[in-house]
Amino acid sequence: MNFLPPWKDKALFTPGPLTTSATVKQAMLRDLGSRDNEFIAVIKDVRQRLVRLGTNSDEYTAVLIQGSGTYGIESTLSSVIPPDGKLLILINGAYGHRMLKIAGIHRILTESLIFTEDMQPDVSALESALKNDPAISHVAVVHCETTTGIINPIDVYGEIVKRYHRTYIVDAMSSFGAYPVDLKACGIDYLVSSSNKCIEGVPGFSFVLARTDSLMAARGFARTLSLDLFAQWEGLEGDGQFRFTPPTHAILAFRQALLELEQEGGVSARGKRYHENYEIALSAMQAMGFKPYLDKSLRGYIITSFYYPEHPNFKFKEFYERLSDKGHVIYPGKLTHADCFRMGHIGRLGPGDVASLMAAVAETLNEMDIHMLVKVEE
Amino acid sequence: MNFLPPWKDKALFTPGPLTTSATVKQAMLRDLGSRDNEFIAVIKDVRQRLVRLGTNSDEYTAVLIQGSGTYGIESTLSSVIPPDGKLLILINGAYGHRMLKIAGIHRILTESLIFTEDMQPDVSALESALKNDPAISHVAVVHCETTTGIINPIDVYGEIVKRYHRTYIVDAMSSFGAYPVDLKACGIDYLVSSSNKCIEGVPGFSFVLARTDSLMAARGFARTLSLDLFAQWEGLEGDGQFRFTPPTHAILAFRQALLELEQEGGVSARGKRYHENYEIALSAMQAMGFKPYLDKSLRGYIITSFYYPEHPNFKFKEFYERLSDKGHVIYPGKLTHADCFRMGHIGRLGPGDVASLMAAVAETLNEMDIHMLVKVEE
Repeated sequence: MNFLPPWKDKALFTPGPLTTSATVKQAMLRDLGSRDNEFIAVIKDVRQRLVRLGTNSDEYTAVLIQGSGTYGIESTLSSVIPPDGKLLILINGAYGHRMLKIAGIHRILTESLIFTEDMQPDVSALESALKNDPAISHVAVVHCETTTGIINPIDVYGEIVKRYHRTYIVDAMSSFGAYPVDLKACGIDYLVSSSNKCIEGVPGFSFVLARTDSLMAARGFARTLSLDLFAQWEGLEGDGQFRFTPPTHAILAFRQALLELEQEGGVSARGKRYHENYEIALSAMQAMGFKPYLDKSLRGYIITSFYYPEHPNFKFKEFYERLSDKGHVIYPGKLTHADCFRMGHIGRLGPGDVASLMAAVAETLNEMDIHMLVKVEE
Repeated sequence: MNFLPPWKDKALFTPGPLTTSATVKQAMLRDLGSRDNEFIAVIKDVRQRLVRLGTNSDEYTAVLIQGSGTYGIESTLSSVIPPDGKLLILINGAYGHRMLKIAGIHRILTESLIFTEDMQPDVSALESALKNDPAISHVAVVHCETTTGIINPIDVYGEIVKRYHRTYIVDAMSSFGAYPVDLKACGIDYLVSSSNKCIEGVPGFSFVLARTDSLMAARGFARTLSLDLFAQWEGLEGDGQFRFTPPTHAILAFRQALLELEQEGGVSARGKRYHENYEIALSAMQAMGFKPYLDKSLRGYIITSFYYPEHPNFKFKEFYERLSDKGHVIYPGKLTHADCFRMGHIGRLGPGDVASLMAAVAETLNEMDIHMLVKVEE
């Protein structure tokens, strides 16, 4: 039953890298010169399509930065905050804490408002911080905290940040491409995401959608060479090239992924598919006795945290490996105060894949002799 | 004559990204979970093979750092030099200058010995610098300066650096995998190279071969989060994973590239092929009247700089594009004081490909009505 042909990859129910389409991967079967015209045209096309995913306004630009999402966040924080600037971070999970760590390493004066992982950062706390501390120049928050899957109201925060005329940075790593966002309406100056999330490309680079005038005011603030966001933008605008060797294959895959996102019907259609994946997983998991960590109103459809079952036979490592042997990769938890695991709903996976995962979960519970009391709620 | 089917990529006679084998690219047709066992095993295998390419000693380790070669250099310089350390850089080209720029951004106390691009950094100048300035803790030099293609004698410098008990950093970006190197015999503490050079993988990450005891002494020196070499090593040694999402596809391609390097006969066999490519290109180019920039004794077989012909019809852009239209990508120059272009000899290309390039050069000269006086020398 557990035989898995080596030519069939496991389905990745993770926050990324994700399962991508065959055609996205096949786009990598080429070697392009990184400074040759064909590749320069690819970069230009990708940048234009990215901007259009976030706004209809001409006031924004897209900058590709080689490296994972964390590189993109570090690039932004270490490049756009002036030496005398002050950063306020709204934190309700590991990725908010990571921004705090980055700011500390770069000795950026930083204030943080830290909330528990099961609640959204408080709007009035943000407002009073901005009212009482005029030194705060930049505000940063995570849209979908992958730690739990919670969705934070970036539009509500943005309205306040703009009312107080501060610069607004959003980590939309896990959400961009799956949740519609209007950069201008949300007052976002910098939105950071990654190639291997909901655009369904392969890992290799992050990207920043930036208000061009905000970025142009950040010349000379960078604290590194490789992650200098302004210099990278200037290079892309100048000769259309990366300053340093780009991940050409990952960018070719991403261009194909952007085309396939359009073919699917854009962000709303993709969000609908992910939402369906989430609904199928949630109801089946609940029917088996698993409990989601977050309150219903806070849950997004990117990734769901489930409590470990309170059953003596449950060992996460074994549960994980049995599912993996059946061809399904789930994800460990990252919570501070609760034992949870996570299940992603994104990537090139549909209802059939989720149903298959649910069958595997049921089979695994059986194998591990775990039987849970199911309480019907919601 | 110039028709190029869209399914045929141009041959890349560049310093990278390079032409890679079909099988290397095909290794990317998989999506692996970045924290799943199969991928962890791939990382481990890649790290072990990398160490073996540079040494038989057990005193070394390999660290993979996402990003281009420049990221790897910045990672090393910003991670291993203590706050009170002092760096000496031997410079004879753009990549030496880039190290100087990186050190400046990170406010590392730095001394540099700058030589012209057509000569190797002077051995006695290095020795007197170390003798006269005990504050110098680290010495950095580029092995093959891609600016010109010059090969610097890293073994000779290493002997001196070790005699004065300093830490030795070598940028072997363009040479590792093509020139045999013995880390221990050369006294190298840190050697930095990249996935898309002479191992013939695709771009996506750099790697550092480090003396484990040197690296262990560098805890806490990092000036960034993403490029923290020590923390990255600690993560790889700990759970075997990258700290942040790795470029899974590029790493799968690299593993295949390492296998194909072994199949070819290792570094010496690969160096032999590249040397043959170089010889064929050089003699044909000289027969057509082109002059190499460097003196014969200084030239390596990685990349060659040729002077622009002194002919009124020669315009590099046109020359480049006509060759590109014929399916061959060459590379612009990067010299400070001379008009040159470059031609790489590395990547999955052999004598037949070089002969084809040479035929295209001859045809292009004809098309551009450039006829040169050929002076037989050497």
